[in-house]
Amino acid sequence: MSNVELDGLRNRLDEINGQLLELISERAEIVQEIGVVKEKQGVPKFDPEREKQMLDRLVSANKGPFTNATIRSLFKQIFQASLDLQSDEHKKTLLVSRKGHKEDTVVVLPGDITVGGLSSLMVAGPCSIESELQTRTVAAALQKAGVKVMRGGAFKPRTSPYDFQGLGMDGLRILREAANDHGLLTISEIVDPRHIDAALDYVDIIQIGARNMHNFELLKAVGEVNKPVLLKRGLSATLEEFLHAAEYIMSRGNTQVMLIERGIRTYEKWTRNTLDISAVPILKQESHLPVLVDVTHSTGRKDIMLPCAKAALAAGADGIMIEVHPDPATALSDAAQQLNIEEFNTFFTDLKSSGIYRF
Amino acid sequence: MSNVELDGLRNRLDEINGQLLELISERAEIVQEIGVVKEKQGVPKFDPEREKQMLDRLVSANKGPFTNATIRSLFKQIFQASLDLQSDEHKKTLLVSRKGHKEDTVVVLPGDITVGGLSSLMVAGPCSIESELQTRTVAAALQKAGVKVMRGGAFKPRTSPYDFQGLGMDGLRILREAANDHGLLTISEIVDPRHIDAALDYVDIIQIGARNMHNFELLKAVGEVNKPVLLKRGLSATLEEFLHAAEYIMSRGNTQVMLIERGIRTYEKWTRNTLDISAVPILKQESHLPVLVDVTHSTGRKDIMLPCAKAALAAGADGIMIEVHPDPATALSDAAQQLNIEEFNTFFTDLKSSGIYRF
Amino acid sequence: MSNVELDGLRNRLDEINGQLLELISERAEIVQEIGVVKEKQGVPKFDPEREKQMLDRLVSANKGPFTNATIRSLFKQIFQASLDLQSDEHKKTLLVSRKGHKEDTVVVLPGDITVGGLSSLMVAGPCSIESELQTRTVAAALQKAGVKVMRGGAFKPRTSPYDFQGLGMDGLRILREAANDHGLLTISEIVDPRHIDAALDYVDIIQIGARNMHNFELLKAVGEVNKPVLLKRGLSATLEEFLHAAEYIMSRGNTQVMLIERGIRTYEKWTRNTLDISAVPILKQESHLPVLVDVTHSTGRKDIMLPCAKAALAAGADGIMIEVHPDPATALSDAAQQLNIEEFNTFFTDLKSSGIYRF
Amino acid sequence: MSNVELDGLRNRLDEINGQLLELISERAEIVQEIGVVKEKQGVPKFDPEREKQMLDRLVSANKGPFTNATIRSLFKQIFQASLDLQSDEHKKTLLVSRKGHKEDTVVVLPGDITVGGLSSLMVAGPCSIESELQTRTVAAALQKAGVKVMRGGAFKPRTSPYDFQGLGMDGLRILREAANDHGLLTISEIVDPRHIDAALDYVDIIQIGARNMHNFELLKAVGEVNKPVLLKRGLSATLEEFLHAAEYIMSRGNTQVMLIERGIRTYEKWTRNTLDISAVPILKQESHLPVLVDVTHSTGRKDIMLPCAKAALAAGADGIMIEVHPDPATALSDAAQQLNIEEFNTFFTDLKSSGIYRF
Repeated sequence: MSNVELDGLRNRLDEINGQLLELISERAEIVQEIGVVKEKQGVPKFDPEREKQMLDRLVSANKGPFTNATIRSLFKQIFQASLDLQSDEHKKTLLVSRKGHKEDTVVVLPGDITVGGLSSLMVAGPCSIESELQTRTVAAALQKAGVKVMRGGAFKPRTSPYDFQGLGMDGLRILREAANDHGLLTISEIVDPRHIDAALDYVDIIQIGARNMHNFELLKAVGEVNKPVLLKRGLSATLEEFLHAAEYIMSRGNTQVMLIERGIRTYEKWTRNTLDISAVPILKQESHLPVLVDVTHSTGRKDIMLPCAKAALAAGADGIMIEVHPDPATALSDAAQQLNIEEFNTFFTDLKSSGIYRF
Repeated sequence: MSNVELDGLRNRLDEINGQLLELISERAEIVQEIGVVKEKQGVPKFDPEREKQMLDRLVSANKGPFTNATIRSLFKQIFQASLDLQSDEHKKTLLVSRKGHKEDTVVVLPGDITVGGLSSLMVAGPCSIESELQTRTVAAALQKAGVKVMRGGAFKPRTSPYDFQGLGMDGLRILREAANDHGLLTISEIVDPRHIDAALDYVDIIQIGARNMHNFELLKAVGEVNKPVLLKRGLSATLEEFLHAAEYIMSRGNTQVMLIERGIRTYEKWTRNTLDISAVPILKQESHLPVLVDVTHSTGRKDIMLPCAKAALAAGADGIMIEVHPDPATALSDAAQQLNIEEFNTFFTDLKSSGIYRF
Repeated sequence: MSNVELDGLRNRLDEINGQLLELISERAEIVQEIGVVKEKQGVPKFDPEREKQMLDRLVSANKGPFTNATIRSLFKQIFQASLDLQSDEHKKTLLVSRKGHKEDTVVVLPGDITVGGLSSLMVAGPCSIESELQTRTVAAALQKAGVKVMRGGAFKPRTSPYDFQGLGMDGLRILREAANDHGLLTISEIVDPRHIDAALDYVDIIQIGARNMHNFELLKAVGEVNKPVLLKRGLSATLEEFLHAAEYIMSRGNTQVMLIERGIRTYEKWTRNTLDISAVPILKQESHLPVLVDVTHSTGRKDIMLPCAKAALAAGADGIMIEVHPDPATALSDAAQQLNIEEFNTFFTDLKSSGIYRF
Repeated sequence: MSNVELDGLRNRLDEINGQLLELISERAEIVQEIGVVKEKQGVPKFDPEREKQMLDRLVSANKGPFTNATIRSLFKQIFQASLDLQSDEHKKTLLVSRKGHKEDTVVVLPGDITVGGLSSLMVAGPCSIESELQTRTVAAALQKAGVKVMRGGAFKPRTSPYDFQGLGMDGLRILREAANDHGLLTISEIVDPRHIDAALDYVDIIQIGARNMHNFELLKAVGEVNKPVLLKRGLSATLEEFLHAAEYIMSRGNTQVMLIERGIRTYEKWTRNTLDISAVPILKQESHLPVLVDVTHSTGRKDIMLPCAKAALAAGADGIMIEVHPDPATALSDAAQQLNIEEFNTFFTDLKSSGIYRF
């Protein structure tokens, strides 16, 4: 066969491509029209029975050369694309998505502290609120260092029911008072929808922990209050799951959501978890929400928290969370990985002087 | 140096070993005495300040050849062992542990159906309760096949808030009625402590799903009712976390707990999750609770459910859970992986005739 | 809009579906014709430049409603399907694939021992060949127990260059002599193409270890000899990569390939690796090759080797590999996980009496 | 019991601690003496038989309160610490370790280009060398951009034996010539010990790919030449395995080793691999070798390469590797993730202007 004949075959391919394009486009328009009708009727747009019929009919008409499986697969793609046309519009309006909300969301905290704007945020404090003294010691140190937001766990989700479970509402009260006395805002984890109302007086930001990222009832509940939420990525959550967890909150009306990467479970044991640094730019692209990085839980190692915090900010993170305790060796939880106050001061000073932390 | 001298050194080593043994044992007895005192005084047994002092003193007395770090590490081991002496007694009585409860726990369901005893249990039914017709169709088929326990989701934890979330209490009612009419028991997932009371009339077994294995408030809440609980392993939970999640339930008084392995998250994508078959014998060794395997979620592939179910039973599992739907292609969730009724009948017949399923 | 009009739209959809089918099928035939021409001309079938042109032309003709990205994606699917038609034919003849070779491959070893046929195979022996005495002790025990194939490492790929690296060719000689004296076949790992020729006299089966599954030069080299090969799955290899590694061997002419699952790397640390039991039925479906399971490396725990071996055979495995050492505590490698001879005898007796091991 | 008595118990504890310290230290000295004797005799220092005897003796003398298992475990720690005393000295001199080599290793390439010193290194070029034109186009662009080292694959380890396997020695020659004409150094992967000699004329740096990080025979072979080596982390290698792979090279005499993190296998699929950013500071701490980051293979996504490169440098990496192709859509490998020349120019300009790239 000569190249002339090859060219003939190619021209016919081009013709067919053009005809396929026209038919596929017309098809999509018809599906859109049907969608409009269904919307009016309140009927779901996806009709698996009808799709099954169409696929069965195509397969029974198929004379090759494609196998029936390929025909099913190709047409499922085409059907799916038409459905996606409608859910793309949906996705465009997915509340977390940057598609429908181009500008960065800036969460404004009391005292006009902003998250997701021009300046980096440092959140620091002990793993658990253990006592007034411990809490006040940290609060004083944070104030002196120029930190604005103090963390401290009052409800601690612990692997064992016999481990220290936190001081509960007492802990929140201790945190609030120490923070007030030192001009700090507070953030603390809430684990039960039934605690939210009572906690609102004590926390400026509600934290949802990694173990509860999939606790959809809790997400819905914090979606219904008017208080910023810091949502941690689950222990092994995909980014898709993470964004949808945020959507659970936003879909209930609370738009002040911040995401925080805290490491994922992998085989590697030289760090407590594996800090998924790529998550930072991907989350910033896919969503308009502020993104922080928890350098304590992602690494579990004091000796690499500074380079990891720099990396997080260099990758585009809006802030850092880190654990600080007056005497880590005696801490009731996370003893090995909390910085003491001197270590924190060195850490924060070095980070600020790196040129990467934004003021 | 001659071998005689080598023997001399070795004899001195043996002497020292003996002396170390005596001192370590005496030390442990003293720690136990102190523990008794502290228990009376209501003071926590572990005193990190005191431990720190002892270590500091040892380090300052250390003249080598061990580094201070090694001395710290060795003595921490010795201190820890002494503490463990007390918590070993604790662990011996950890409620899930076989150490304190040698015999297999047999959960007895209504109608004297047992789980964890001599016979294998088959739990089958649709992913979600979608309609009366769908539910009754499956119930009739299960009854005919000789299945005794029917599953069906009414509260569905879904990645997206816009996906079908289940029929809720209506779903539970539909399940209960269909089950009653066909002589079946029911199991369904509960996701919120506030739903438990209302659900008790409808379910014979409460299921805690993988996404809620770390929802400790929910675990505590089901620990307080008198109803068997089937606890799923979390998406990437370690076995230690899984057992402690069961302990959360048992520590509140509910001893009728069953564990179910449902696959873990790994890099491999030819299955939906990776069925961790080793978990079955380990869980059976470490705990006295019944252990089931969910072959639907662990594999996500119809074509290997039979060999995986055989493997699960051969490894010692007490039962199998599998999803069955009258028309999987139209299912509102898990469309790809549910068996249709004919497929289920073939599956169950083959499994029963394999010699591995116990009657 | 009435349902009549809805029916009209649906009829038009059906028409378009039919026209799309015809065009797509014709398109595929033309691509096949072009493929035949190209094959004659010795030109590669995939022409990315031409594909780019076609996609650009389609995009420039696109008037919606699909976005250009969707048009690109849909047509890439269609183009890919046409190419796959040719590689499907290819895949049909992929040498490892069951598509082109329906019957199970039965590897016949000297002495008419078969792998992949009706009976289960037990392969046992020490991790490393350490001495004549150690090797002969195991060989005698294996013969007594009725085992036919003895393993023993002579070239040991060890994490550290300072760990025991095996006895090399001396080890192979020791293994061969012990095996001969006890009527056993031998299997040992080869790690360097330059060792293969010399090793052929000593081993009846060449083992390719997990760390070398991706060492394609080694795979090609063992593909060129006439000796059965046991190929281990890589530490974190996907099943697709595993099958393609086998294809590297088969594509060079050696068709006597056996696959062995040995656990994959996951976050779970209660086992050395995670035994991916689903891999067994999937590999049996996808390929016609015998599939074994290494219960030693997959679990790393003596206490669950029996249930895991049962699970492997129940899932369809053709054989089991396990490590046995006369005195595991003193072994130069894998001390913790090798069975001693008495433990092995109990293990093998129990496995044979389980009804799952096939004779 | 009064607090006076409690103090008495505590004093006795302190006494015992002191006595234990003395005995443990004396014991360590004796073990060291025995080690010296054994070294003279050429006998291995670890004698598992002797250890077993000592443990058995201790257990038979044990009268509680510790269980025999605890006694075994505690004394194994003590025995191990004594052995480690000797191997610590060994580890102190582990060639990759910073313990024995405090200063950063700076690899000096031809033209006095340094890696691991003050300035960041950019390594760029196509995944595969495909043609002279393609290679020269990239080389010209790199020269213009100020890049000094060009990568290009000639021996490509591909999952399928039927995929493009690289141009082999022809590819190396093309790379060398293009590089020479544009004042660039070359780096290319070698996959077989038998290719090394011939390759030495063409490459300035030998790359060992991720799939061969565990190919110890190859590591030993490149350890014996006098040419810098860039060693990639294995697909799922731990950092310990990675460092030991480098030790294989260094232990053979080649000290010019550079490490490169290239992402690890995890469950997350929004990136090709998960960039383990923590690996950078850990590797810099544990070893004195230069550490680079491959942003192409770790992410597989063009849209996040810039933030990930910034993160890598901020975390302390000495350089970046990235793939550049004149027309990525037509590339014979890695089509989706290679930057085109314009994209690379933007990437490099932005990185240099970030303040993080060091000149």
